[in-house]
Amino acid sequence: MFAWQAAGSRQWLARAVRRNHSLEATELANTSLDDKTKAWKSLINIAVSGAAGMIANHLLFKVRIYGLFLRGFQLASGEVFGPDQPITLKLLGSERSFQALEGVAMELEDSLYPLLREVNISVDPYEVFQDATWALLIGAKPRGPGMERAGLLDINGQIFAQQGKALNEVASPNVKVIVVGNPCNTNALICLKNAPNIPAKNFHALTRLDENRAKCQLALKAGVFYDKVSNMTIWGNHSTTQVPDFLNAKINGMPVTEVITDIKWLKEEFTERVQKRGGILIQKWGRSSAASTAVSIVDAIRSLVTPTPSGDWFSTGVYTTGNPYGIAEDIIFSMPCRSNGDGDYELVKDVIFDDYLWERIKKTEAELLAEKRCVAHLTGEGNAYCDLPEDTMLPGEQ
Amino acid sequence: MFAWQAAGSRQWLARAVRRNHSLEATELANTSLDDKTKAWKSLINIAVSGAAGMIANHLLFKVRIYGLFLRGFQLASGEVFGPDQPITLKLLGSERSFQALEGVAMELEDSLYPLLREVNISVDPYEVFQDATWALLIGAKPRGPGMERAGLLDINGQIFAQQGKALNEVASPNVKVIVVGNPCNTNALICLKNAPNIPAKNFHALTRLDENRAKCQLALKAGVFYDKVSNMTIWGNHSTTQVPDFLNAKINGMPVTEVITDIKWLKEEFTERVQKRGGILIQKWGRSSAASTAVSIVDAIRSLVTPTPSGDWFSTGVYTTGNPYGIAEDIIFSMPCRSNGDGDYELVKDVIFDDYLWERIKKTEAELLAEKRCVAHLTGEGNAYCDLPEDTMLPGEQ
Repeated sequence: MFAWQAAGSRQWLARAVRRNHSLEATELANTSLDDKTKAWKSLINIAVSGAAGMIANHLLFKVRIYGLFLRGFQLASGEVFGPDQPITLKLLGSERSFQALEGVAMELEDSLYPLLREVNISVDPYEVFQDATWALLIGAKPRGPGMERAGLLDINGQIFAQQGKALNEVASPNVKVIVVGNPCNTNALICLKNAPNIPAKNFHALTRLDENRAKCQLALKAGVFYDKVSNMTIWGNHSTTQVPDFLNAKINGMPVTEVITDIKWLKEEFTERVQKRGGILIQKWGRSSAASTAVSIVDAIRSLVTPTPSGDWFSTGVYTTGNPYGIAEDIIFSMPCRSNGDGDYELVKDVIFDDYLWERIKKTEAELLAEKRCVAHLTGEGNAYCDLPEDTMLPGEQ
Repeated sequence: MFAWQAAGSRQWLARAVRRNHSLEATELANTSLDDKTKAWKSLINIAVSGAAGMIANHLLFKVRIYGLFLRGFQLASGEVFGPDQPITLKLLGSERSFQALEGVAMELEDSLYPLLREVNISVDPYEVFQDATWALLIGAKPRGPGMERAGLLDINGQIFAQQGKALNEVASPNVKVIVVGNPCNTNALICLKNAPNIPAKNFHALTRLDENRAKCQLALKAGVFYDKVSNMTIWGNHSTTQVPDFLNAKINGMPVTEVITDIKWLKEEFTERVQKRGGILIQKWGRSSAASTAVSIVDAIRSLVTPTPSGDWFSTGVYTTGNPYGIAEDIIFSMPCRSNGDGDYELVKDVIFDDYLWERIKKTEAELLAEKRCVAHLTGEGNAYCDLPEDTMLPGEQ
C-alpha cells in the first residue's frame, strides 16, 4: 500500500502505516495527562472506493463534518467519543486513476484538516479495508455503449463480490458498509453475501439522495421550507421503480395528502420529478450530481450515528430479514428506519399502506428479485437466470 | 434576477426575492416568542462569482460549515448571531454558464441545507451583490492561447472594475470582499479603486492556499502534524514571486530555523515546493486544485469571523496603507494579520526581517507595482504602462 507521505514521494509498505507527521504517542507524552485524555482517541478508519471520482472528491473534503458529527458517535461497545474524533481516510482507486488519487491525497494534505490523521491510497481492497469501521463503496463501472443492464449487473457484481470478500477478511467485524455504486441495491446484496462474518444488517444501499429530492419536491409544492417535511420513505430499489411514499410522509406534522390535496400531482408528477431529477441535472449541468450525492452520503452516515429525531425516520436500503411489512426476504430494499445513534438501526413499524402504495412496492420488489436471480453466480446461489424486463437505471446515473 | 424557485421554473424579478419556501415572518408568527427570538436572524447574504465553476462547486456545498462558524460571528455593530445563522447564496455566472448555474441551484436544493434560506442566480453583478455582506469573487477569465500576462491583467481587470462599481453601489456598505480570480492581488486593487464607498481594508486577495501549502511542507519536512506549524506568512503577490516566510514561522512554538536546520532546503526547495504544488497537482489530477482552494476560502473567512488564536496569525492580501513594514503603499500585498473575529483585522507588528527575506519582499513588491502601472486605466490613475518582465503566474493556475 502506498501510505501518503510527502509531495511526490511514496513508500511501499507491507501494510498501512501512520504517516510520520500524524499524531504519535511520543508526541502526546509531552502533553499533560488532561490533554492526553482529551486528545487521544482511537482512529476511525473510513475506507472509500472510487476515491478518484467526482462524488468522492466532494465527499472527502467534508472531513470537518465527519469530525463534528462523529464526536457524538456512541459505539455499541459503550465507548463514547469526545469532541475530537481523529480519522484515517483509506482511498481505493484503480491503476488507471492512481495518479489522480495521489492528487486527491495531496489536496487533502494542503487542506490541513486537524482531525485527518492519515491518508492511505491503494488499488488493493484488502489493504484499503484493513480495520475499516466505515466502508463507503462509491466506485463502480459505468455502463459502456450497448451494454445491457444484465451486463452491468455482472461486471459491477464481480467488483462487489471481491470487495465483500476483502471486507469479510480484513475490515472491523462491525464495519458499516454504504454502497453507492450502481446498481447499488444488488451490489450491496452481492457484497454482503460474500462477507458472511459481517452482520448483514450492516450493509446499506444509498437511497438518501432520492429521499432528499422527494422532500425537496414536496416542500416546493407545499410552499414550506424543507425542514417541515418529515417521515419520507423511499421504498425498494434505487432505480426508476423506486417508490417515494407520500402516504406516510408528513408536512408540518400533518399527512402530506392533507396539505397537498392535488392527488393527481402526487400520483403522477411527484414520483417522476424525483426520478428524473438526476436526468435534468445532467442536461443542465453537463455532469452527474456529484455534490448532492456526496451530501446525501454524509446525511446517511449522520442518520446512523446521531439519534433520529422523535417521531421521524430516514430511508436506507437494508437487508430484508424478518421485516414487518411482508416484503420478500433476502434482498436489499429501501425502508423506513430509526437509529439511536449507535451506528445501528431498527425498522419503523407504524407505517400504513393502501393499494396504490402496495402495488408499487410489489413492482420494485419484483425487480429486485429479478436482479437477484441475475447475479446468483455471484451470491453463491447457483446459476444466474436473467429476465430483467426493462432498463430502470435512473436517468443521470448511466 | 432569476430567483430560484423550483425545478425547471424560474421567475424574472426586478430584484432578489426570498423563495416562497424560505422562512417567512408569517411562519414565525406561529411559533412562540421564545422560538421567535431564537429562530429569527438577519439573513447573511453571501455573493459568489464564477459560481458555475469547480472551485465554487466545492465551496457552495460547504454551507453547513458557514452556518457553524458564522454562529460566532460578532458584527462590528455589536450584534451577536446565535447558533443558527441563516444565509442566502447569491450566485453570479455568465450567459454561457447559466444552465450549469441552474444545476448548481438544484443540487443545493436537493441538499436540504437547513440554514440555506435562499439561492439566487443571475448574470448581473448589480443584482447578485445587492445587500451582500460577503463577496467571494472567484470568477475570472482563464488565459487564452498566446495571451500575455498584460492581456490577462486587462481582460480580468475590466471584470473586476465592473464588479467593484457594482459592489460600491448595491452591496452592504461594510461588505467583505475576497478575490480569488487571478491575478488576484491586482484584481482586488482594481476592485477597491472602483468602490470608493467601501473601506479599502475590506478587500482581500486570497493567499490562504499558499499559506496552507507552506504549513504542510514545513510539517512534512519537520515530521510533525500540521497544527504544530504556526505564524506562517505569505508576503506579497499570489504569483511565483510570493514569499513564504520561514524566518518568522514557528514549529511547536520554536523558530522554524531551529527545528529545520537544513537552511539550504528552506531557501532553495521550500518556496519552490509551495509554488509548484498547483502545477504538480494539475499533472497528476488533470485539473486544478479546486477542492483545496475552496477549503482555503473557508479558512480565510473563518479567520476573519473567529478570534485568531493567541500568538498566532494568518496571511491575507490586503491594502497597504500605513503598514509598519515599509512596504510600498497603495497596493494589495499579502501580510500577517490577526482578527478579533469581527470580520476586521489588524497587521501583526512583531515580525523580523533579514536581508534574504527583505530582498525577496522587494522583488514581489516590484512586481505588484509593475502590475499596478499596467492597469492604471482601470484604477482611474491615467494611462497604463506595461513593463512586466516575466510571466509569474503560478503553475496550475493558467
